[in-house]
Amino acid sequence: MRSRPYGYPILSLQDQLSSFDNHIERRLSSLCNKFSDEKAFQTLLVSGDPIIYEVYESCRPEAAGELASGLSIVHPGRVGQEYFMTKGHYHKVRDTAEVYYCIQGKGVLLMENESGDTAVEELHPGRVVYVTPRWAHRSINTGGQDLVTFFVYPANAGHDYATIDATGFRKRLLDHDGVPTIVDNHQRSECSG
Amino acid sequence: MRSRPYGYPILSLQDQLSSFDNHIERRLSSLCNKFSDEKAFQTLLVSGDPIIYEVYESCRPEAAGELASGLSIVHPGRVGQEYFMTKGHYHKVRDTAEVYYCIQGKGVLLMENESGDTAVEELHPGRVVYVTPRWAHRSINTGGQDLVTFFVYPANAGHDYATIDATGFRKRLLDHDGVPTIVDNHQRSECSG
Repeated sequence: MRSRPYGYPILSLQDQLSSFDNHIERRLSSLCNKFSDEKAFQTLLVSGDPIIYEVYESCRPEAAGELASGLSIVHPGRVGQEYFMTKGHYHKVRDTAEVYYCIQGKGVLLMENESGDTAVEELHPGRVVYVTPRWAHRSINTGGQDLVTFFVYPANAGHDYATIDATGFRKRLLDHDGVPTIVDNHQRSECSG
Repeated sequence: MRSRPYGYPILSLQDQLSSFDNHIERRLSSLCNKFSDEKAFQTLLVSGDPIIYEVYESCRPEAAGELASGLSIVHPGRVGQEYFMTKGHYHKVRDTAEVYYCIQGKGVLLMENESGDTAVEELHPGRVVYVTPRWAHRSINTGGQDLVTFFVYPANAGHDYATIDATGFRKRLLDHDGVPTIVDNHQRSECSG
């Protein structure tokens, strides 16, 4: 890990591959129980378990004051009516924020907190979204090309996937005749436990 | 100050004006003793004290875990051979990093630490620079249009301008026949105190 300041370009895939310390690929199979349409999920799974999203990270020591940063790339597609999306997570250290800057594509950041509030913020090139501390967040690609965002968060934040794994988000984003539409997640209680 | 997640666009001046909480303008007169050519400085000062750079800030509580973010815009121009630049500063809380993402223009981030090291990283659209904790940093516009960068740093970092005010940076960036060239700052000891 570098101890001096450093720079890196993030606008082409070739640059990404060489500039980042870590690359994560999430296939459909790692998003079990996340999508509402189980039949569509199984059909897509047997047809080849596609990559849903990728994350390129610039790693830093997990210390307060350091900043983790990188690129999130959610590929375009749907599972039934539901758009391709990330797992979504809280930060393990709840009182830590995150900043997203959209570089390419079209989508939303779906967020919720443990008090029962939901927030939906659009992502399109040049738009920043500030995820206030204590809000779980999920990137959803509603467009026809890769949704690419640059993210920055305190390097000590950590990831808590388990809370969302247990219950799911309260809301889903579905395609209704070409229009991204927020609906209640009726499976929320079933997924609990 | 907002307690829910929020988004804002940052790609046009009109958006900037309405989206940010705070706007700072730094005129030449606020950069006294920063440029090497005192005669060129005085000439430019009496000709109208131009705005050298501007900062648009999205303010957050000054707490660890929160992130301050915004836009830095360094206008194009020179004082003698020296490019328009920011004052430059350390973070008051030394063990805090900063991330820059270049949106427009061409320049460099000049950095140094209190151990005597210097770092120079190029800024051009799509390039990220990570300022590791304990490094002072200054944005310098070497191009012909505004140098626009999006910055993110821990909201508890604070600004220490006094350390750089007292001595200046160890290096300067001068235009030598159209080529940005790093040179020693021979006035560094004179400015001390």
